[in-house]
Amino acid sequence: MTTSTQNEPLIAPPGLAGVVVADTEIGDVRGAEGFFHYRQYDATELAREVTFEEVWHLLVRGHLPTAAELDQWNDLIAENAVLPTDLADNLVEIMRRSGSDDPLVSLRTTVSALGALRGDRPLWDLDADAKEAAAIRTAAAVPWLVTAARQVRAGEPVREPRPELGVVGSYLWMVTGEEASEQHLRALSRYLCLTVDHGFNASTFTARVVASTGADLSACVVAGIGSLSGPLHGGAPSRALDALDEIGTVERAEPWARAQLAAGQRVMGFGHAVYRGLDPRSELLRETAVELGGPTADLAVQVEQEVVRVLDEAKPDRPLRANVEYYAGVVMQACGIPREMFTPTFAVSRTVGWTAHVLEQSRGRKIVRPSSRYVGQQPPQAVPSLDAR
Amino acid sequence: MTTSTQNEPLIAPPGLAGVVVADTEIGDVRGAEGFFHYRQYDATELAREVTFEEVWHLLVRGHLPTAAELDQWNDLIAENAVLPTDLADNLVEIMRRSGSDDPLVSLRTTVSALGALRGDRPLWDLDADAKEAAAIRTAAAVPWLVTAARQVRAGEPVREPRPELGVVGSYLWMVTGEEASEQHLRALSRYLCLTVDHGFNASTFTARVVASTGADLSACVVAGIGSLSGPLHGGAPSRALDALDEIGTVERAEPWARAQLAAGQRVMGFGHAVYRGLDPRSELLRETAVELGGPTADLAVQVEQEVVRVLDEAKPDRPLRANVEYYAGVVMQACGIPREMFTPTFAVSRTVGWTAHVLEQSRGRKIVRPSSRYVGQQPPQAVPSLDAR
Repeated sequence: MTTSTQNEPLIAPPGLAGVVVADTEIGDVRGAEGFFHYRQYDATELAREVTFEEVWHLLVRGHLPTAAELDQWNDLIAENAVLPTDLADNLVEIMRRSGSDDPLVSLRTTVSALGALRGDRPLWDLDADAKEAAAIRTAAAVPWLVTAARQVRAGEPVREPRPELGVVGSYLWMVTGEEASEQHLRALSRYLCLTVDHGFNASTFTARVVASTGADLSACVVAGIGSLSGPLHGGAPSRALDALDEIGTVERAEPWARAQLAAGQRVMGFGHAVYRGLDPRSELLRETAVELGGPTADLAVQVEQEVVRVLDEAKPDRPLRANVEYYAGVVMQACGIPREMFTPTFAVSRTVGWTAHVLEQSRGRKIVRPSSRYVGQQPPQAVPSLDAR
Repeated sequence: MTTSTQNEPLIAPPGLAGVVVADTEIGDVRGAEGFFHYRQYDATELAREVTFEEVWHLLVRGHLPTAAELDQWNDLIAENAVLPTDLADNLVEIMRRSGSDDPLVSLRTTVSALGALRGDRPLWDLDADAKEAAAIRTAAAVPWLVTAARQVRAGEPVREPRPELGVVGSYLWMVTGEEASEQHLRALSRYLCLTVDHGFNASTFTARVVASTGADLSACVVAGIGSLSGPLHGGAPSRALDALDEIGTVERAEPWARAQLAAGQRVMGFGHAVYRGLDPRSELLRETAVELGGPTADLAVQVEQEVVRVLDEAKPDRPLRANVEYYAGVVMQACGIPREMFTPTFAVSRTVGWTAHVLEQSRGRKIVRPSSRYVGQQPPQAVPSLDAR
């Protein structure tokens, strides 16, 4: 373990891999153990046993709610899930005018606009209660913002939230236009609970860097959405399912995996930067997919076995296992969520995590300002000059 | 100098201060020397001797343009500065509907919307030419986006760009409604050239983190805008001028500075994280302010001397000098730029720097994903459980 001193600059490895950039009380990912937790609670156990709203409370308020706290909390989220009509109409018009086929890009614009319309103030000007209020109302609006964006784009009527169904039920209602079954509710709740937070991934880190400047909460979330929209970060759930489609039958799994490896491609849905072995999220999502059943789940399980076998053979020193994206797509599809809404659905949960991190970051007053190493042509003189042209 | 290896995690100091997070060929800030350069050229010398467009070319294309290259480059920027009428009208309506008193917040929304409306693709799906085109068209639109936002908010007619006046002239035209004098053009050009880039400040770093995910160019710039909007980052130019107003006369400078220190406040406009002595930007901006003349410039110079004297006495071990913000406000005000447009004007130049960094970052394929250190309550068991509740 190397600790720097003031006089000893650190040269970080590419992508800051393995560099501890901050202390956090929100959660921990123990890659080697295949385990992650939120504020001491095993995340997979939370996903099985408590509601998404309880996990949200845990992240933002620091503890699991009592029954009375939960009632109040659910009310608070419900109130914030439904925007006043004029505000909602205004945002629908902005969606119409700033249309993108990608609901996540639309979310980037509308979270920004919503923050402005609500008069979000810089976090540094706010007390703890006001910061928390901004965090809750922003995250609570996301399910409607992403589903409405898609409906506006498709020229369909915009469905309003139904907060009495809970966050998960209301979201599935808005996506599908149907009241979800208990099984679908449980399945999506698990997915959302499992993806609320996961260390200092790029989007969480982005949100924290912006928060360190004292900017308003929307600025932090908008920046996080931008990172999440990157193909290397949030773009994979639908790709893994696309790959399953391409494979089609279990017999084609092995040749497909070998072809990917031969072409030097990453095998979509397998391997993770932090988990060297099992990804606990994919373990629970596999179980959930199998419970939901259906041909895609069957195929996914069989293909996983084949692909893992090929990968183990090709890279015996580095076990590559199915990651969260692999079964996430299977589960979301089974719940009636269309493919273009996979990453936006990820945003629904991850926004909660970002806001918890933003609140934590904004308790400190230290701006994130790293250094760089100049490796271009050096100024040619002691007092460099334009004469170098 | 400490270099990490794969197996040796680094604990970075707070805010990543002094940690080299990436190599760059764009520029270097030599804090101890009071010197910074862009691609080997002394930035203050560039600010004195070449146009903003030439600096832009230097940052994005890597070299100062020849006369023929500059003609072409100016045309390219001019073409991109004027949006097609239907697109501009649409954005004006979005500004109207997502209104904020802060043009920078509006810029966050409209850059996001503009990217979507132009169908910006993830950087990872683009070749070098397409990336550069996205960088140029985005940065070229910013001067109009920030000025129009303010005019829409004020219910004033929106002035169109006049690209034949150059970037600086067109911007001052849009802000003031008048063709700027040669003296104002030169002064603002210096400010913009001096603030294009400055190491891995929070907004530049934010934009690079987003770029590392492969997201589209607008996502990177929108995130940078969010960081810039933070009070600790881009919010200071008007505060320094506010402080000058509060001081009012040179006699009040010393008691004012002593009162700030006694209250444990940072003295706005003084001191810098990287420059331990002179900030070369404030040196040139002081000279520029003095050339422009007027009572505010006179007062600023006198107050600076008084405040520096008090600071030297109070903190003899750490020389605090006027930073870029101190004279930036004086210069911008003298050029007819209202106070609420100071940070948006900063965004006009810094967007160019962000785009250069985004292009550089996107040449690599490594996502930025640091680690954190969990310091909360530990899971109570080898196999942690909800029973800990």
